Amino acid sequence: MNMTVEMMNSMPMMMPGMDMKVMQDCIEACAAAEQACTMCADSDLDEGMRRCASMCTMTADVASTMMRMMMRPMGYDSQSMMAMLEACMTLCRACAAECMMHAELSTTCRLCATVCTNCAEECALMLASMKLAMD
Amino acid sequence: MNMTVEMMNSMPMMMPGMDMKVMQDCIEACAAAEQACTMCADSDLDEGMRRCASMCTMTADVASTMMRMMMRPMGYDSQSMMAMLEACMTLCRACAAECMMHAELSTTCRLCATVCTNCAEECALMLASMKLAMD
Amino acid sequence: MNMTVEMMNSMPMMMPGMDMKVMQDCIEACAAAEQACTMCADSDLDEGMRRCASMCTMTADVASTMMRMMMRPMGYDSQSMMAMLEACMTLCRACAAECMMHAELSTTCRLCATVCTNCAEECALMLASMKLAMD
Amino acid sequence: MNMTVEMMNSMPMMMPGMDMKVMQDCIEACAAAEQACTMCADSDLDEGMRRCASMCTMTADVASTMMRMMMRPMGYDSQSMMAMLEACMTLCRACAAECMMHAELSTTCRLCATVCTNCAEECALMLASMKLAMD
Repeated sequence: MNMTVEMMNSMPMMMPGMDMKVMQDCIEACAAAEQACTMCADSDLDEGMRRCASMCTMTADVASTMMRMMMRPMGYDSQSMMAMLEACMTLCRACAAECMMHAELSTTCRLCATVCTNCAEECALMLASMKLAMD
Repeated sequence: MNMTVEMMNSMPMMMPGMDMKVMQDCIEACAAAEQACTMCADSDLDEGMRRCASMCTMTADVASTMMRMMMRPMGYDSQSMMAMLEACMTLCRACAAECMMHAELSTTCRLCATVCTNCAEECALMLASMKLAMD
Repeated sequence: MNMTVEMMNSMPMMMPGMDMKVMQDCIEACAAAEQACTMCADSDLDEGMRRCASMCTMTADVASTMMRMMMRPMGYDSQSMMAMLEACMTLCRACAAECMMHAELSTTCRLCATVCTNCAEECALMLASMKLAMD
Repeated sequence: MNMTVEMMNSMPMMMPGMDMKVMQDCIEACAAAEQACTMCADSDLDEGMRRCASMCTMTADVASTMMRMMMRPMGYDSQSMMAMLEACMTLCRACAAECMMHAELSTTCRLCATVCTNCAEECALMLASMKLAMD
């Protein structure tokens, strides 16, 4: 992610009060969630994992969209960003809970649950940081 | 959209209490928002429209992700769906407001503002319908 | 799609020699393929359809990306567009062949196969039209 | 990317003859291209960079779709994968050439050109590796 950080630092900054370290951690967590969920959805083994596959495919899309929003400071709108963080956090938690149900059957699900839990936590931290800056 | 409706009717339904007509209208509105915002971002003419281009690119991603979520009943989670509808509605409103600022300069922006406003309204209707069903 | 056509006509055109009617049909076919494949992947019923679900998820992404490329005339590069049309056509054909294998078991797969076949045909027509214009 | 590698190794492998090290490098290069192009499109400064912004937005979508295809071994189709690698390579090269035109004006463009060039090279290596395995 060093290139990402270097590029972000070279961009004109349009996000007043944003803690850049918190945002970079959130970007990394979203990128990891997109990748983990894409692989998890593809490797779900039997009929009992169909809900897991569907949730993971959604989470991959939402995490990717979340990541891209943070990389677009020019169109930054704090209300939209906070609502999207809330959505990403909610879905990552639900997806992690589903993956945990077959963590013993599948290494992929176990790893994916960890990555989704981390992404939910990073979104929560960024939400808290944004609310703090607005006070 | 006749094929989409026919396919949706052929799928096993996992969304208890969902008003399918409201959801189909929301799917159509999101598809239109993705397309309008993609074109609007590409045609923004001068430096004064850079924020418009950035917001439209984000809205295209969010509307597309929202549309796909509604087409994945197997992984349906009502809390995640409602949070995502809230995010899509918030961003579509902000994007429409930005597009309206140069509606007189650009036909593309004027049309895009209408499509984003409609998408925000359909998301609001679906949110209201889901809340009603949960009572 | 009337709004899409109206917007496209309002944009500055940067695609010399492009047959706009052919491109609009291709845009519609890609949008339909994204939607059909997203629903098909979610509704695949048993272990025998895992390959179908994975191919449909890829086809949804590729068709969506193809559609967006055609809506971005400002960055138009004919070699990139033709290579992407080739990729979209190849994947849509492979996906349609996979869906056809269980067309009798699943209405969703049967409909999805038709939509993917149509998308492959529209990509082929657009490729032919672009090659003709370059001679 | 350690989590990504660990997950990929835990998945059932359906890609006969694939050099996994080459594919993992290509996945990393595509992820970097998506991020660099998303930021570059957002930061393009003036009217002379509109083509750059449009090409970068397309490249972000194509690189993301390419990355996800490599993470879906279950639906692997060698012809589709090779056609998509060809498309990603062609677009990354065109995008890098465009970014290079204002590398002196913009650090973001200079960094983005490097990342796109690398992505094109990794796609070419993977294509060569796949062709070798098919002989």
